[in-house]
Order: sequence, then C-alpha cells, then structure tokens
Amino acid sequence: MKISVLGAGSWGSAIAVLLSKKGYDVSIWDRNQQLLNEINHSRENIRYLPGVLIPAGISTTESLLECINESEIIVMAVPSHGIREVCTKLKGMVKNKQIFVSLAKGIENSSLKRMSEVIEEYFPENRIGVLSGPSHAEEVSRDIPTTVVSSSTDKKTAEYIQDIFITPKFRVYTNPDIIGVEVGGAVKNIIALAAGISDGLGYGDNTKAALMTRGIAEIARLGVALGAQPLTFAGLSGIGDLIVTCTSMHSRNRRAGILIGQGKTVEEAIKEVKMVVEGINTTKSTYELSNKVGVEMPITKELYNVLFENKNPKYAVSELMLRDKKHEIEEVAQMIWK
Amino acid sequence: MKISVLGAGSWGSAIAVLLSKKGYDVSIWDRNQQLLNEINHSRENIRYLPGVLIPAGISTTESLLECINESEIIVMAVPSHGIREVCTKLKGMVKNKQIFVSLAKGIENSSLKRMSEVIEEYFPENRIGVLSGPSHAEEVSRDIPTTVVSSSTDKKTAEYIQDIFITPKFRVYTNPDIIGVEVGGAVKNIIALAAGISDGLGYGDNTKAALMTRGIAEIARLGVALGAQPLTFAGLSGIGDLIVTCTSMHSRNRRAGILIGQGKTVEEAIKEVKMVVEGINTTKSTYELSNKVGVEMPITKELYNVLFENKNPKYAVSELMLRDKKHEIEEVAQMIWK
Repeated sequence: MKISVLGAGSWGSAIAVLLSKKGYDVSIWDRNQQLLNEINHSRENIRYLPGVLIPAGISTTESLLECINESEIIVMAVPSHGIREVCTKLKGMVKNKQIFVSLAKGIENSSLKRMSEVIEEYFPENRIGVLSGPSHAEEVSRDIPTTVVSSSTDKKTAEYIQDIFITPKFRVYTNPDIIGVEVGGAVKNIIALAAGISDGLGYGDNTKAALMTRGIAEIARLGVALGAQPLTFAGLSGIGDLIVTCTSMHSRNRRAGILIGQGKTVEEAIKEVKMVVEGINTTKSTYELSNKVGVEMPITKELYNVLFENKNPKYAVSELMLRDKKHEIEEVAQMIWK
Repeated sequence: MKISVLGAGSWGSAIAVLLSKKGYDVSIWDRNQQLLNEINHSRENIRYLPGVLIPAGISTTESLLECINESEIIVMAVPSHGIREVCTKLKGMVKNKQIFVSLAKGIENSSLKRMSEVIEEYFPENRIGVLSGPSHAEEVSRDIPTTVVSSSTDKKTAEYIQDIFITPKFRVYTNPDIIGVEVGGAVKNIIALAAGISDGLGYGDNTKAALMTRGIAEIARLGVALGAQPLTFAGLSGIGDLIVTCTSMHSRNRRAGILIGQGKTVEEAIKEVKMVVEGINTTKSTYELSNKVGVEMPITKELYNVLFENKNPKYAVSELMLRDKKHEIEEVAQMIWK
C-alpha cells in the first residue's frame, strides 16, 4: 500500500520514516528539488531532521503526479500558508477515493479557514482527516513515546487514519471534533510565541504558566464560538500540544519568541530560527477571526500588537499580567457566590 | 497590622518577605529553632531560600503563642503532614476573629482530608482560605510576575485575602471553589513525580505532555467526584500549577521523580532533594481516596505501585502510554458519532 507525503520538512520527514518502518510504500514530494536530492543521496534530511536515517524504501520525486499516483493516502505536510498552492496543483490529479491527512497547523490569512476547510474547497468528494497533538518530529523519529489524535467528521475516516499511523510508540486516539482539534493545533503557536517572549524578557516559570493557562482559555473560547467541543481543549490537541510547544526547546515558535523578547526584530528572529514560524501568520488570521466572531483574546491581541504594530514586548506582557480582574473564573464565581 | 507565618520553608519565607515589603508586621514561627536563629543572624534563609534578603521588619520566634498573638492572619506554611500537629498546638491560643490562610498542598494520610478541612476540624468558628497557583517561591521572592488564586467558601474571606496578598507582581484572583483549588494543588504533585520519572527514564517532551494532559484529566475527575467545579482545573490552581510543577527545575517533586526514573530508590531520592517531597504522601492518600470514591486515576495508581509496591518505573510509564483506548474523549465521541 502506497502513501504520499507532500512536504519534506521535519514533520513530513518524521511521519514518512514512521510509515516506512511500518512497511508502507512511501513517496515524498517537495517543491524544493535540491532538498529531495540531498535526502536521496545522504539518506538523511540534514536541514530539517538531522541524525535520522531515511530508510531506502522511501522514494522522493519532484513530480506531484508521480508522488500521489496509486497512493491511498495523501499526507499534507507543507506549511499552512502553502496548503492552498499545493491543492491548486493537485486539482485534476486526485481521485475521489484518495484520503487526505492534514498535518498542517494554521489558519489561512484572509480566508480565515482551517486547513481541512481549504482542502475541502478543492476536494469536496474526498475523505479528509487531521493528525494533531504533542509530537515534536525530532522525538517521534527517535521512537520516543508520543500520543496524538486522528480527527475527522467521519468516524470511519478517523479510525482508518488511526490504524494506518499507530505504532507501539506512537499512540493515535480518535476525536470527532475536527474544529476543536485544528483550532487548538493552530492557535497554540501564538501562545508559544508569547511564552517565548516572556522567557526572552527574563520572566519566570510562574509567569509562563500563567500565560499558558490563560492561553488555553482563549483558544477554547475561540474554538467554542466556531463550533468546537470545550473538552477537546483539555485533550492532547489542546493543552497537550500547547504544553509541549511552550516548554520545549524543539519549538521554533517558542524560540522565535525568545529572540523577540531578547530585543531582536521579528525579521531577525525568523531568519535565525531558519524554519517556518507558523505562529506569526496565525496571529494575523486569529486576531482577525476573533474580531469577526466577537471573542475576547487578550494574548493574541497583544501579540498582534508586538508583531504587526511594533509594540514593545515588555509592555505587552506587563499589560497581560496586570489586567484588572477580580474573580479567576467569572462563571464559577457567579454560580457559587451569586 | 500583624500577620503570622507558621513554617520557615521556602514558600513560608517568600510569602513573609512579600508581606513585609507590603508594610505588614510579620512574625515567623518554625519548630526548628536552629533555622530561625540562622535567619535572624544572617537575614537570609540559606537552607530554603538562598540569596533572598529577609527584611529586618520580619521577626522570628520559637513561641507559637507569641507569633500569633495580636495577628489578624495566620498563614499556615508548614508541610501538609505537619498541619494537624500545628493545629493541635494552636488549640486554645487562637481567637475566633483570626483568619487562617493555608499554603499547604496535600491530602492528609488516613483521614484523607484536604488541608482546610483539617484546620476547620480544630477551628470551626474561624474564617479559612487558601492561596494556590503556579508560584515557585524562588521566583516570587525575586518579584517575577506571578498569578495565584485566593479561595474560600466565604466570598468576603477570599476577597480579604486577595487584598492582603496582592502586589503589582503577585496578582491574586478569587475562586469560590475551595475543593477544586485544594485538590488541584495537592494532586498535581503526583503528576510532577510521574513527569520527573518520565524525564529520568530519558523519555521526551512529547511523552511528558501526554502524561500532563492525562494528569489534569484524572485530577479533575477526582475533584468533581468530591464536589469541585470542572472549570477550576482549567485555571491557575489546576493546569497552571500542574504545568509549573512538571516543567520547572525548581520543583522538588519533579526532581525526586527524575532521580527515581534514573534508578535511585525512593529513599535515596528524598535524601538527595533535601526538602519535603509532598507528592509521596499525597500519592498514598490520593490512591486511597480514588478507591474510596470510585474514580479511575491510572497515573496515581501506577505511581503508587512504583513508590509503595516496588514496581519498576519503566514498566509503569510503558503501561500508561500503551493503555488500550480508542477514542480520546469518550463523551465527545459518544455525543458526535453516537
């Protein structure tokens, strides 16, 4: 059985290695032919997943058509801002029975769509699922125990994806709430940038834990307004992914935030991190989305000001910490104290 | 206005410093006279809060009566297993108008009571509140921005404590759900031990994030069974405190876990950490409490086996990761997929 992986970044490569080890016939496509050549010759993705053997069974191709031909599953592992372009190229090549699995985490600028919504726009007849959760590629490719969720509105699709990807060290659970799963995966990158800024400014673990606690609350508020289930945000694709992204040095969003907190410009930070910092685009779309649906997202708003309005990060974090608020959770205070 | 702080550990000392800087007349008591002498002479708590100046305005005394005499607030900052002993000693000294603020995080062995319940047993006429949240003493004493909750069943008490403790860098919110606040603060130490064991075994950030995600779920299950509000566990005293305790090197519970994961015995780990590892006693009481109220707590159970039944930590973590489960959140799957 053949599976195609579109995008040879760190996560695409790690998932290709996992699937190949499970015995599937894996083909990787990337628009960067140079990168594919390097992988082919050295059997290692030196730029994005150094130190991990790319098994000989994995083929690479610069032809999208060759890559997806005869494959049962098309794994979308390109950065979120590249999803639409790949969909445009795929149009006309894809058969209705091919199943999409999105690994991309973001909300598209201007359309404000989730990744599965962008894919669905082009391929309304195909089954679409997403895989999300606390899963740094560097660790998954080294067989470190990891847990994720497979989500789709269609139960069979979610369970099929679960069966395909699960291994003893990579546990896959199903969750029907694709809105919640995708919102959690995308918006957590904003909070990771903010957490990085807090670290870069020299604040402590107490400060960061407070930011993360409020972060998951504002992610959940947005998600619920969009139709998600509140419980999803307490799960792996919600708080789980948020924790790993805000605390691990593997996280590029956090690293970019640290540099910004230390006084670098946004451009300098992106350049230094070298890989795509998803959280920056996502801040823009999420800020607009929150205004559109009327949901209060204080951290997103402050980060928008820092990234796009030149606000001093120190003032932004101070304002978040000093917000004038009395009760921790208004609903609970209202309910019990009346 | 006078405030007494009972217990000169790191948290008691940090809170005494904070209150003294706010201008209150602070008196510290500890059963360890030697420790009080050291603090008095060096104006530093070298054992538990090194590098922080203890202002001259803070007095120390080995007499409980002298310490609490004329004070409006009695801050209980002794380890959770010492709360009952201090209450016994205080009996007969305390006036009804004196307010207790508990900083102790634990569930008492054998009685299975929360700390405020133990205090209430001795002082049913007094107002009692708790202060909890992501607040490492080392950071609070260095004015690093920190947020906590003040909780009491009585609104006036919670708000009074909020007013007393709040500073621009130490933000205090109120929460009426004292059961949830205390359960979160106590049981998170169990998850921190487990997270430390995972780190000590060489597992990764993905693994730890998964443990923490399931950890807060089992804490919330126990709390709700005891009458807490689910939302409290999504707040500062729930996930916030859990995050800081599982990820910071300031956490003794995590450090003890790391040592156990690396192969040390429980006794060796306690000896090396030097301070009280609250999570060990709490594992015992929480395990019994979960059996008593019939709540499934897989991490607590595995940790109980490691700490008290000599189970190999490697098998314990493996079993947690490999649990046979299909849907991530059964309620959501049932609701949407039927």
